[in-house]
Amino acid sequence: MALNENAAIEITAFKLVPEFAQGVVRDLRVRWALEEAGLDYRARLLDQERPAEYLLEQPFDQVPCFNDGKVRIFETGAIVQYLGEQSEVLLPRDPQGRYRAIQWTYAALNSVEPAILNLLLIDIFYAGEEWAKLRRPGAADFARLKLKRLADWLGEKTWLDGDRFSIGDLIMITTLRFLRHTDMVAEFPNLGAYLKRGEERPAFQRALADQLAVYAANQPQPEGAAA
Amino acid sequence: MALNENAAIEITAFKLVPEFAQGVVRDLRVRWALEEAGLDYRARLLDQERPAEYLLEQPFDQVPCFNDGKVRIFETGAIVQYLGEQSEVLLPRDPQGRYRAIQWTYAALNSVEPAILNLLLIDIFYAGEEWAKLRRPGAADFARLKLKRLADWLGEKTWLDGDRFSIGDLIMITTLRFLRHTDMVAEFPNLGAYLKRGEERPAFQRALADQLAVYAANQPQPEGAAA
Repeated sequence: MALNENAAIEITAFKLVPEFAQGVVRDLRVRWALEEAGLDYRARLLDQERPAEYLLEQPFDQVPCFNDGKVRIFETGAIVQYLGEQSEVLLPRDPQGRYRAIQWTYAALNSVEPAILNLLLIDIFYAGEEWAKLRRPGAADFARLKLKRLADWLGEKTWLDGDRFSIGDLIMITTLRFLRHTDMVAEFPNLGAYLKRGEERPAFQRALADQLAVYAANQPQPEGAAA
Repeated sequence: MALNENAAIEITAFKLVPEFAQGVVRDLRVRWALEEAGLDYRARLLDQERPAEYLLEQPFDQVPCFNDGKVRIFETGAIVQYLGEQSEVLLPRDPQGRYRAIQWTYAALNSVEPAILNLLLIDIFYAGEEWAKLRRPGAADFARLKLKRLADWLGEKTWLDGDRFSIGDLIMITTLRFLRHTDMVAEFPNLGAYLKRGEERPAFQRALADQLAVYAANQPQPEGAAA
């Protein structure tokens, strides 16, 4: 168990989020990377209503922030890359392998995630709005095209760059999870198997369990339960 | 002039793009980084209709790809970071400064660009569609919120992390340029000044001129001009 209240590494996370977000909030990525690297950490838990000062740590008011006493940063891509410097499980050491992993991290966050998150927002946040109904087919097609490109690249490979798992896979797999309310990833069998392979890693399982445990512990009590 | 047809570094770029895209296509970012680093490069120019094999180099069918004979990668974030390893102008050497710059590179590409590009697509690609008309005010508000967060963070600083320019600024400034068809950046005077500061750098000016020169050279001849 990598959660340790005396650990030097601190990340921020939420005490509680709506059900649709449980298991996909971005601290999951950093928890997963920490588990892969075998590094202890503690989580500083925030209410959904963040204090105004949090913007001085994270200008976009998001989680997670990372602080190990040496480096203070936000953005999951940057954090998992920093952790990769400390663990060859996450980031190869040869220049080509290293930069392929970094390339896939950026690709997940900039070439894939926007199309996928756009669809998630349409389906969850804006579901009742007229523009969302009109836009949904086109947004789904665009997300599907990204998945097709990714599936074509992946082919029979185990991970994006071949036999070796890296931060690129970690970020890509957590990105694909934003579509779990649909069957779109499974439309591409090799991509569905890739997603499953990632989620079956013990480090992912521990990270997910630790994120969900926080929400379970902070569920509002049913009315009358305190009586 | 860093363009040199015998250079070891090769990037891909387009021969010609529609006018609205001229000066914002992503090879601009890499050209700018190369100019800041003082590295020679050559551009392999592609038709808008890319050959199917290009997907083996760039699975999402975008430009630029980068190849220096040692490392072959795509994704502008990864490429400018790789170039940063070769130039302290782009990437500080101390761990905190280095990872702050990397953090801002990811922030530009994942926390800012999607909101801004969404608005650009609504205004340019989907302008005639009913959903785009209905969605435009909300999409503009969301982009504006990102700009406000960024402006609040920037305050009186010269660059995102203080006095030192880095790849984080390079990517953020080229991201803000996607809003040049609006006055939104100028609504935040410190952000407008920041954008101008970036665009006034001689390396940016050379990169922009070199990108635009390709399009000028590949303009279709007016009918009858060949006669």
